[in-house]
Amino acid sequence: MLPPVIQNLDDIHQALQSLPGGDADTANKAAEREPQLTKPPGSLGRLEDISQWLCRWQGRHPPTMGAPRAQIFAGNHGVVKQGVSAYPAEVTAQMVANFEAGGGAVNQLCNAFGVGFTIDALALDRPTEDFTNAPAMTESECVDAFVFGMGTVVDGTDVLCLGEMGIGNTTSAAALSMALYGGEAQEWTGTGTGVQGPALDRKTAVVAKAVACHTGATSEPLQILCRLGGRELAAIAGAVLAARYRGVPVLLYGYVSTAAAAPLEAACPGALDHCRAGHVSTEPGHRRLLDKLGMTPLLDLNMRLGEASGAVLAVAILRGAVACHNGMATFAKAAVSGKRD
Amino acid sequence: MLPPVIQNLDDIHQALQSLPGGDADTANKAAEREPQLTKPPGSLGRLEDISQWLCRWQGRHPPTMGAPRAQIFAGNHGVVKQGVSAYPAEVTAQMVANFEAGGGAVNQLCNAFGVGFTIDALALDRPTEDFTNAPAMTESECVDAFVFGMGTVVDGTDVLCLGEMGIGNTTSAAALSMALYGGEAQEWTGTGTGVQGPALDRKTAVVAKAVACHTGATSEPLQILCRLGGRELAAIAGAVLAARYRGVPVLLYGYVSTAAAAPLEAACPGALDHCRAGHVSTEPGHRRLLDKLGMTPLLDLNMRLGEASGAVLAVAILRGAVACHNGMATFAKAAVSGKRD
Repeated sequence: MLPPVIQNLDDIHQALQSLPGGDADTANKAAEREPQLTKPPGSLGRLEDISQWLCRWQGRHPPTMGAPRAQIFAGNHGVVKQGVSAYPAEVTAQMVANFEAGGGAVNQLCNAFGVGFTIDALALDRPTEDFTNAPAMTESECVDAFVFGMGTVVDGTDVLCLGEMGIGNTTSAAALSMALYGGEAQEWTGTGTGVQGPALDRKTAVVAKAVACHTGATSEPLQILCRLGGRELAAIAGAVLAARYRGVPVLLYGYVSTAAAAPLEAACPGALDHCRAGHVSTEPGHRRLLDKLGMTPLLDLNMRLGEASGAVLAVAILRGAVACHNGMATFAKAAVSGKRD
Repeated sequence: MLPPVIQNLDDIHQALQSLPGGDADTANKAAEREPQLTKPPGSLGRLEDISQWLCRWQGRHPPTMGAPRAQIFAGNHGVVKQGVSAYPAEVTAQMVANFEAGGGAVNQLCNAFGVGFTIDALALDRPTEDFTNAPAMTESECVDAFVFGMGTVVDGTDVLCLGEMGIGNTTSAAALSMALYGGEAQEWTGTGTGVQGPALDRKTAVVAKAVACHTGATSEPLQILCRLGGRELAAIAGAVLAARYRGVPVLLYGYVSTAAAAPLEAACPGALDHCRAGHVSTEPGHRRLLDKLGMTPLLDLNMRLGEASGAVLAVAILRGAVACHNGMATFAKAAVSGKRD
């Protein structure tokens, strides 16, 4: 289904009110096939659940995993001037070039697993405002990035891995999460690219100040995204919404990507039902955020890289699930005795 | 290096005393490359550790992951007559035929991930003795199976996934683990293929009785393997030993495979340093056993199938680690600014 035209935040709210609910019939077909396969019932654990989830959101049975894609968005953040990152702001553009040249971790993972890859840089020469004293983006800037993200989602994608690159953006993720879900800044703020000690204290104070600056003005989740997000976060949110309409399941990875999608769920519970967490980051705020969203990550390998890397790695798990579901023999066909009553 | 000739349990003990220690130089080469790659230090988490572990045990840098193999052993267990399984004993042979025809879960996973596959059935027409009142195997039977397992390991394998099929063998795994590490039978006994309620109580009582029957006679780990193991478990132990000599890292999956390898570690601490746990089973005894062995599983997806399935799935994680380690650009080559001091 084509997603609706979005021109402002109200349009996004309207789109959230008419989200497709997934195809329960195809999910049921997957559920009915499982007990016929030559294994004890339930013994493939989450792989069985993955097959049903893919069927529901792809809208077909058997599920397919031949055409996964990774989409990365990059943005720059005015808050970097507050000294929140271990790396200088120019690294965002340098890493975009590195991705374009195929040198990033996510490039290697996409090559290894046959996952299509696109990187889009969003106005890197115009960082967002420093959100400790002003909204990061105007509503118009946020909607532009959101619509750009929507436009990157194409029909026929079996699963979409969403990720980001942006020096300073774990500060944005922490502020956004705290503004949506409450709690203390130190519960949401982590090392990011590697800040420690006094630098981490400074980052935590920046998060607290930013949240205090904006949550008096609004508690509306999409307004929060404008004020505390960034262009790459708004683009991720847009891609998540468009994927729902286009029948594309989504794998999120990383604190930033998950925080970017969270305002949709906060505005409309169930809006992320077509999304799974590929990996939980070592950023403590990410685990906390996944708990708030009711998401259990597929992988937990102590990664904290972003770039959709943990989502692309989880594509292998999805591919294993689909291979088992589609290819295994049935008890009847293999002449294997079933379970005793 | 060729493994030594094994003719009896003493020979195995001798082989354990002269295990190759892995190649620290190649592991160091991997460790030295990591901080040069275009990512924050440590941000690939366990993927970085995997690369170093593979280098140490493959004895080369860069590590390779082009030729992984899965080796499954099948055996039948006399203890099945005690009613410990939800499936009849003939399912072992039926599932062997299913694997040979390519219909099992592990076949689909091997196809999906390009992993070589071999299934070997060990004297299915001669189940082990019922170990509630006699040793499961004579020393000679156990050594024969061990040597058979050793012979299946071939040079040039990048990683070896070990697994099993055998109705009744989670009862063997529970008894073996309890005999090696103590504790109560209910801590080590789980649902296996799906026993619940009174059937699970019966299985637990069988485990307690078996351990009581044999641990008075010996506490020597390899004797325990003879008395409470099975042919497929002895073969796995043999394959683990041969892999160490031949420079082949091992992925274990499942309660049974891990219990099969545990006597080597109990007899010689460090004997499993070339092994990793691919996945932790929902069998509570497996998690407990991994804790005793100091192994942190790579995956936790609620699977409990055996068949090396969780190890083959973890091959994808290893492949991702190797792809990143070998293929990523360095900071110098990509002209990306490094971390600020």
